[in-house]
Amino acid sequence: MTEVQRNGGNWGRWGKDDERGAANFADAGCIKLASSLVRTGKVYSLAIPLQSENVPVLPPRSAPQHYMRMDGGDYAAGLKRKGGFQTSDDYIALGTHTTTHIDALAHVWYDDRLYNDFSANTVRSNGAKHCGIDKLRHLVGRGVLIDLCAHRNVPHLASGDIIKPEHLEECAKAQGTDIRQGDILLVRTGWMGVFKKDGREAFFKGEPGIGRDAAEWIGNKGVAAVGCDNWGVEVIRSRATFQARCTVG
Amino acid sequence: MTEVQRNGGNWGRWGKDDERGAANFADAGCIKLASSLVRTGKVYSLAIPLQSENVPVLPPRSAPQHYMRMDGGDYAAGLKRKGGFQTSDDYIALGTHTTTHIDALAHVWYDDRLYNDFSANTVRSNGAKHCGIDKLRHLVGRGVLIDLCAHRNVPHLASGDIIKPEHLEECAKAQGTDIRQGDILLVRTGWMGVFKKDGREAFFKGEPGIGRDAAEWIGNKGVAAVGCDNWGVEVIRSRATFQARCTVG
Amino acid sequence: MTEVQRNGGNWGRWGKDDERGAANFADAGCIKLASSLVRTGKVYSLAIPLQSENVPVLPPRSAPQHYMRMDGGDYAAGLKRKGGFQTSDDYIALGTHTTTHIDALAHVWYDDRLYNDFSANTVRSNGAKHCGIDKLRHLVGRGVLIDLCAHRNVPHLASGDIIKPEHLEECAKAQGTDIRQGDILLVRTGWMGVFKKDGREAFFKGEPGIGRDAAEWIGNKGVAAVGCDNWGVEVIRSRATFQARCTVG
Amino acid sequence: MTEVQRNGGNWGRWGKDDERGAANFADAGCIKLASSLVRTGKVYSLAIPLQSENVPVLPPRSAPQHYMRMDGGDYAAGLKRKGGFQTSDDYIALGTHTTTHIDALAHVWYDDRLYNDFSANTVRSNGAKHCGIDKLRHLVGRGVLIDLCAHRNVPHLASGDIIKPEHLEECAKAQGTDIRQGDILLVRTGWMGVFKKDGREAFFKGEPGIGRDAAEWIGNKGVAAVGCDNWGVEVIRSRATFQARCTVG
Repeated sequence: MTEVQRNGGNWGRWGKDDERGAANFADAGCIKLASSLVRTGKVYSLAIPLQSENVPVLPPRSAPQHYMRMDGGDYAAGLKRKGGFQTSDDYIALGTHTTTHIDALAHVWYDDRLYNDFSANTVRSNGAKHCGIDKLRHLVGRGVLIDLCAHRNVPHLASGDIIKPEHLEECAKAQGTDIRQGDILLVRTGWMGVFKKDGREAFFKGEPGIGRDAAEWIGNKGVAAVGCDNWGVEVIRSRATFQARCTVG
Repeated sequence: MTEVQRNGGNWGRWGKDDERGAANFADAGCIKLASSLVRTGKVYSLAIPLQSENVPVLPPRSAPQHYMRMDGGDYAAGLKRKGGFQTSDDYIALGTHTTTHIDALAHVWYDDRLYNDFSANTVRSNGAKHCGIDKLRHLVGRGVLIDLCAHRNVPHLASGDIIKPEHLEECAKAQGTDIRQGDILLVRTGWMGVFKKDGREAFFKGEPGIGRDAAEWIGNKGVAAVGCDNWGVEVIRSRATFQARCTVG
Repeated sequence: MTEVQRNGGNWGRWGKDDERGAANFADAGCIKLASSLVRTGKVYSLAIPLQSENVPVLPPRSAPQHYMRMDGGDYAAGLKRKGGFQTSDDYIALGTHTTTHIDALAHVWYDDRLYNDFSANTVRSNGAKHCGIDKLRHLVGRGVLIDLCAHRNVPHLASGDIIKPEHLEECAKAQGTDIRQGDILLVRTGWMGVFKKDGREAFFKGEPGIGRDAAEWIGNKGVAAVGCDNWGVEVIRSRATFQARCTVG
Repeated sequence: MTEVQRNGGNWGRWGKDDERGAANFADAGCIKLASSLVRTGKVYSLAIPLQSENVPVLPPRSAPQHYMRMDGGDYAAGLKRKGGFQTSDDYIALGTHTTTHIDALAHVWYDDRLYNDFSANTVRSNGAKHCGIDKLRHLVGRGVLIDLCAHRNVPHLASGDIIKPEHLEECAKAQGTDIRQGDILLVRTGWMGVFKKDGREAFFKGEPGIGRDAAEWIGNKGVAAVGCDNWGVEVIRSRATFQARCTVG
């Protein structure tokens, strides 16, 4: 067990068989409460388009691929179906981490132990027996946006900028937002703008993000999940340096 | 324009550029209202697992494929990473109609015209320029389950059983449910049970489902979308006979 | 080391770094000799078509998938390119053992040791470091067909029929064929006919094929490779029973 | 019919149903003759490795993908099979033009007419009905290397360099090589070295290659196929400029 796991982790909190981790915080009560807070009904998508080009893909992963099994061109070329009925059909192939996605708890771990002490030996070629994304089942709750870019009046934080607990607290306070147990916390770094402006290499060279202290702070708040507009959630000074990974789980 | 399109379709209703069709019924007001109706916060998944076996796949589509780019076995076999940090990564490849999914408006059409009179010539090998699933953007609303199996006290309707407007009305009435504009209508036929019990061939040989009258009735109700636990939504007596497709769009 | 490996294997024969195994028998001299034997120049394909349907695929592998990235239908639907130049492009996705193929030496092994004592721990999610198909480099030589069906005047051998050394010898003698070191030995069982006639389940329920004695006999002959028209080369009485695998390597 | 087709093409030469084009030149007689010319039996591979990185892939195609369905890591992680028998299995997904490959006659055409006047409307989402690579069946013959780099004593020709008939003739003469009907002509430009040295962008910016005159000259020689170590065979001054395509077919 790492220091982070000892201090801020949730191992055992929902029983030794639990495979959902912090997502459990977003329980029925939280969902009911979150539902009652809807004021306008407007929906905001947080997704990057699922496409082959102009999407950030970290090599050696390949970009999403999309192919048509049947399309309008086939009819234009002479295909006929009874009664004028026509149809198209398609196929996609993608790395699960190549576009907007949720990391399963089986995505990262330390020293052969997954969240809740499951063995990493159970993550084999046929998939994750434990803590796979199928175990998440659902993630619904109150979303809280901490918009650090707006707060600091910058287009994006700088690569290597460590987001600390006090930054999150200040920003939440300035926004008039509280962060509650069961929330889905969205931290805006503006880093996706670097991809759009400067391309893939600049985007993946490093990134601003939460540091270890913020990770523990977030863990202690009991948020159900953290979302971020950078590529790895946590601050990365250079591709070779990783810290403070996945303490929420 | 087919008779159905003339009678019950929504072409032009949201302007000539619209690509969302009936999903527009689930507007912000509906979403806000739907949110206010949440009583317990319990989440029900309607999804079939995303897996290669024991899922209904209509040939010549292939079953979903899942591969690990890196897994726990690699570490067990000797792979080392600094600081004990380990990770798994995966890849999926699937026909978009091989498991639980939402049909885009560009999935089916008559006589070279997509919903809202877009040309089917715009659906080419590089995807659907109009009415693709990307244009749906979101689908949130009040879900209404019409459980015909419970109402009739049968495990499933029979193949070829045509669901008519009066069946939906009676069942809704017996349940004490009303169907409103903007609702997401879920019709339970029990047909998935045939797949589980009798396998793929029996499942795809035909199916119970809504007939043309029910399709128009649903269209006139202004529901945002229809979901079903069979394979093609509408009744299909035999694989070669199709009727009453996609009048909601 | 298994008994077979001790008796008939080639470990160490081409040095401890060798990853080609018996393919080494088909050396330049054999290739030169084989070339000199060509009498008519007629080419016989031994391949099953690469297609999604009507090909034997052992679940849970998926059938080969083929998609067009661009095709004639796109031009029919209105795509224009300068000067009338048009092009099509495609994509395939397939399990490497779903159609006619050559097994790499890294495909099967006993007790964590690949051919030539390489560790099976070197076969990881990123591929086979040793004994992969890339190490074969080439396989050219004199092909010798042992046509047991013609010899026995049957459309196919029966499932579970064990092909023994004496069967190969008799058939070769009757054909007037000798089997030499470096040859590529093709044994015809007719079993593919069962797939064509009775379908996938009958085909994979079992198969006729070489037994352990024939495998050793073949190994001792120094043939470079063995090809067969069944699904697993060796006799398989039922899907659960395997014997005499891969002693040639 | 384009001017090139009129002057140097082979439409009709092997009958109106032919789908093999110039490959027909490499007939049984040529194959028999070619076989008799083998002097050492040494095999030279002309293939680029099939891998995801460090291979030239023209966007938006994706690089070849390779995944293990089962590997040695699974056994290291605890998977057990009876009798110590172990196996690995893999899956590949690739654009057919992303690595060393043979263009089918259905790959390029002018004005809706494939080789031999087949309609491009027959190349649809489900593949090429005519002139697909399956129709090639085989390509065996005498390979002739025209090594322009060795002849000019340069590591590679320059981008935009047009290879003319006289260049091929001079080089063949200097090498003491004749080019015969049915040969497989390999023209070495050295351009792959640019990919290795300067990377993908430099490689795809343009290329040296045969011009229209050489294409006609080659066509008139009756060679069965042309192979080249650049990306598009013909000279390309810039990505937007194409000339002299596919006159051999």
